[in-house]
Amino acid sequence: MSTVGFVGLGSMGSGMVRRLLAAKRRVVGYNRTRAKAQPLLDSGMTWAETPRAVAEAADVVFTMVRDTPALHAVTEGPDGILAGLGPGKIYVDMSTVSPAASKDLAARVAERGGKMLDAPVSGSTVTLREGKLTFMVGGERATCDAVTPILLDIGAKVTYVGDHGQGALMKIATNLNLTAQMLAFSEGVLLAEKGGIHRETAVEVLLNSALASPMLRYRGPFVLRDPEEVLFDVNMMQKDMLLALEMGQALDVPLPTTSLANEFLTAARAMGLEHKDCAAVFEALARLAGLPR
Amino acid sequence: MSTVGFVGLGSMGSGMVRRLLAAKRRVVGYNRTRAKAQPLLDSGMTWAETPRAVAEAADVVFTMVRDTPALHAVTEGPDGILAGLGPGKIYVDMSTVSPAASKDLAARVAERGGKMLDAPVSGSTVTLREGKLTFMVGGERATCDAVTPILLDIGAKVTYVGDHGQGALMKIATNLNLTAQMLAFSEGVLLAEKGGIHRETAVEVLLNSALASPMLRYRGPFVLRDPEEVLFDVNMMQKDMLLALEMGQALDVPLPTTSLANEFLTAARAMGLEHKDCAAVFEALARLAGLPR
Amino acid sequence: MSTVGFVGLGSMGSGMVRRLLAAKRRVVGYNRTRAKAQPLLDSGMTWAETPRAVAEAADVVFTMVRDTPALHAVTEGPDGILAGLGPGKIYVDMSTVSPAASKDLAARVAERGGKMLDAPVSGSTVTLREGKLTFMVGGERATCDAVTPILLDIGAKVTYVGDHGQGALMKIATNLNLTAQMLAFSEGVLLAEKGGIHRETAVEVLLNSALASPMLRYRGPFVLRDPEEVLFDVNMMQKDMLLALEMGQALDVPLPTTSLANEFLTAARAMGLEHKDCAAVFEALARLAGLPR
Amino acid sequence: MSTVGFVGLGSMGSGMVRRLLAAKRRVVGYNRTRAKAQPLLDSGMTWAETPRAVAEAADVVFTMVRDTPALHAVTEGPDGILAGLGPGKIYVDMSTVSPAASKDLAARVAERGGKMLDAPVSGSTVTLREGKLTFMVGGERATCDAVTPILLDIGAKVTYVGDHGQGALMKIATNLNLTAQMLAFSEGVLLAEKGGIHRETAVEVLLNSALASPMLRYRGPFVLRDPEEVLFDVNMMQKDMLLALEMGQALDVPLPTTSLANEFLTAARAMGLEHKDCAAVFEALARLAGLPR
Repeated sequence: MSTVGFVGLGSMGSGMVRRLLAAKRRVVGYNRTRAKAQPLLDSGMTWAETPRAVAEAADVVFTMVRDTPALHAVTEGPDGILAGLGPGKIYVDMSTVSPAASKDLAARVAERGGKMLDAPVSGSTVTLREGKLTFMVGGERATCDAVTPILLDIGAKVTYVGDHGQGALMKIATNLNLTAQMLAFSEGVLLAEKGGIHRETAVEVLLNSALASPMLRYRGPFVLRDPEEVLFDVNMMQKDMLLALEMGQALDVPLPTTSLANEFLTAARAMGLEHKDCAAVFEALARLAGLPR
Repeated sequence: MSTVGFVGLGSMGSGMVRRLLAAKRRVVGYNRTRAKAQPLLDSGMTWAETPRAVAEAADVVFTMVRDTPALHAVTEGPDGILAGLGPGKIYVDMSTVSPAASKDLAARVAERGGKMLDAPVSGSTVTLREGKLTFMVGGERATCDAVTPILLDIGAKVTYVGDHGQGALMKIATNLNLTAQMLAFSEGVLLAEKGGIHRETAVEVLLNSALASPMLRYRGPFVLRDPEEVLFDVNMMQKDMLLALEMGQALDVPLPTTSLANEFLTAARAMGLEHKDCAAVFEALARLAGLPR
Repeated sequence: MSTVGFVGLGSMGSGMVRRLLAAKRRVVGYNRTRAKAQPLLDSGMTWAETPRAVAEAADVVFTMVRDTPALHAVTEGPDGILAGLGPGKIYVDMSTVSPAASKDLAARVAERGGKMLDAPVSGSTVTLREGKLTFMVGGERATCDAVTPILLDIGAKVTYVGDHGQGALMKIATNLNLTAQMLAFSEGVLLAEKGGIHRETAVEVLLNSALASPMLRYRGPFVLRDPEEVLFDVNMMQKDMLLALEMGQALDVPLPTTSLANEFLTAARAMGLEHKDCAAVFEALARLAGLPR
Repeated sequence: MSTVGFVGLGSMGSGMVRRLLAAKRRVVGYNRTRAKAQPLLDSGMTWAETPRAVAEAADVVFTMVRDTPALHAVTEGPDGILAGLGPGKIYVDMSTVSPAASKDLAARVAERGGKMLDAPVSGSTVTLREGKLTFMVGGERATCDAVTPILLDIGAKVTYVGDHGQGALMKIATNLNLTAQMLAFSEGVLLAEKGGIHRETAVEVLLNSALASPMLRYRGPFVLRDPEEVLFDVNMMQKDMLLALEMGQALDVPLPTTSLANEFLTAARAMGLEHKDCAAVFEALARLAGLPR
């Protein structure tokens, strides 16, 4: 059986490795700070000293990092993944990055004889733990088919969407919905609340209604109390919104609710909430409605 | 066992009666056009000649009609429900109407010695058939408790939200999300499509993601082909959006995505799509993006 | 020379009468509170005890009131203007009211043998004092021609726009621009200010630029300090915005900036600024930008 | 008297040189295509073979180019302006570029012993011909004072706004208003038109009203017929809007009307109107309103 490499062991990455290990996959991993990897090492993951070493040791290498600069940090240079790739190797990036950056990287992987896929995921660490993560994959279909068994050890569904960069684009097209949904939800909660309905009741009804997406069921309750752990903060959400707006410009697609919702993320930042969960658009709107949190 | 009265036997109303009959409830019903009631009569519903006659024959009377004027048409006048109400009777309106109209009506029911609830539902005929409809109830809690067993024969969950009119308000606060979600979804689909991803694939991925609310799982596919039957058209959705905007004005709650999304319903009307499913905001945005449907 | 009647002697109305008197017009006037009319009576205006008496005494009657209900208060009933109108009389309403209300009134004036015009104005009391007010007139062109000499004693320019109600519509189509311009101006000021430019400097530059409409030159400085007198407050502006949004619904015209800007008037109301000049949208946006006024 | 250098002789740049020559200034100029400079050479301007040669020959050098890349093209490299600057020289950029780019450039000018100002202008070629251009200047105040006499030979008003880059920021904060004003104006025109008022009449009334900024008086008539020459097309306007949105992100200032109006520029591009005057947002909205141009 093939060896799986994994670079980027944050909350999503380490959860994925945990599922791969549970599926009896051989995993070699690397993370910028080794300490975070210890529980995985205890569970059987092998450590590699550099991203390049991961690529050299593995047949299929995955990355799961924060953004385009973080991706470059693990792919470029003498210790980077690219340096460790060669014919027969497959490199799968699951981060949310710009489609153009993903496409460029795929071309450079191809120059080294490897194959690349962009395979971002939909879902949070909760979805991941439940095994319900879904993948949207860009690249060659045959490469997608080849790694699908590994992806299905991590999540529940793999959809091949098209050429290099189109997985990344599809992820962006997905995520733009999140802020808009959260802002509309906030409008509903505040309308109910200023009309005399308890906020708890309003949230309960909304989350039992036809508009309750998995994201809202997870994030909606954050308008009642802050989450214990912030998995996707205002800054991270805005990174994705700005990628969406950039692609809208590039592809001539007007994105009215996306751009409007993004301004409320900016407002949340202006209120000092940049490290709060992105549900903080609620607080920006609440301020505009004359209501304290 | 008490007799249930039902006025308004459109697609939602008749589906509700069907569930009541299946639960062995005694139902007496009225509809403006009797022909539509025939299948229910064949299944055991009793016919009444006027809304007043329904109210006289039943212990608990339900109405499920299109809008505030339609509600007045069945409640007012010598043949109206009000004329048939008296002490001990409970009247439950499940239509989506203005909270003020609902409150007024409750006061007039009280004058006649009866009790009223506003109990609008979340869900479509599909949700109804699955027995998953949810109710948001305004009025006195004891009255709500009294009719809850009947409501649970129709749907799955009853939430008491507060005083008269607050069920209606909660419904409006729910529905404003629908257009905003649909418009954001359309932005995602069009961004993917202009980036080279097949529309079918984009819809599939989005509906397998964390943003896929029950409403979007039902309505999202309408951007691929028109539904066989239009259950909630542009005009009906806009009626609800205007109620939301009116309440936003009345309660001083800014509703930015609601008001923006509403303008795309207006655009759909300007394109002649007022009788299409409200998913037609997609077509308005597609036109703006230079794409035919 | 004909006698001019005038009902509604607020800040705009009394300024108009002042100009008519200065032009040696014979004016008979009425106001709900007579005290406010005293300076005009001292300058030669004749008092009438009711709106009807004004209509009976004058050849051409003007009204300038706050809104549609105020208009009905002076036109209806035994003491109303309608009761005093008859063949040969011309009635000109300069208020900003709904086009439908204006059209209805014109029909009732016609039933009595009179002619009506809707002739709202563009400009503030400042514009009025400078003699630069402009009129947009709906009704029959011949009637418009007949009163034009009087209108030109009040202001500078008369434009005949079309049939009954179209003057009112044109006024609404004008006013929707004001909030949008003020909100965009606020965005410019706040962007400059948070970038380190003094607010005073930013306002000065903006008001010396190509975007400085007469309205902005008047209202822009209010972001520096409150005006001494509030001539057009948040509530009045929102009345006009809601008329615009209503007409947009009726005529199937999407009004994206109008609806968005209106939400910031709502926010200003939520902040308790409803009686401040409508420049208060600046403060709503400033709050969203994390800036105190 | 000092010699003035000028790089970038497009419609704005050559109009400025014309005014400098009319004021008896000694001007040495350069343009990428010499042919365009011929009329100015005929009027007394001296030609230089490179931007560097302009900088060497002049005491004060101006640039007026399209965007940040075009600015780099004339400032960098062995033939660039920077190479020709030294102690005692002043370099004034009047282009609309990003504040960060302007600040960087100022630092590099300082390294060579020179002084830089960012001094973008408000106004079009029409304003320029009328001598009414205004300048917003960033840099050291003493440098601003030193060049003010030259600036006043070109335009009418100089406002010192602050440090390096703040002239650029102020220009961006100004220009964001233009699209928003044009879109709101379009809403007014379309509302009037669908209500039965001739478009010509609507434009006339609006341009005689309190909202008629100099920009709207110039650009508003373009909704009736295309201008003979396009001075500021959709692409150029969108460049400025994107600079504004970028600065809004950087400075945490929500820009709701700016971002919304920008989406209508995107729509205009999607309709193939990118090289039309930016008044083309009208056509995007008209399409949404179901109206052909």
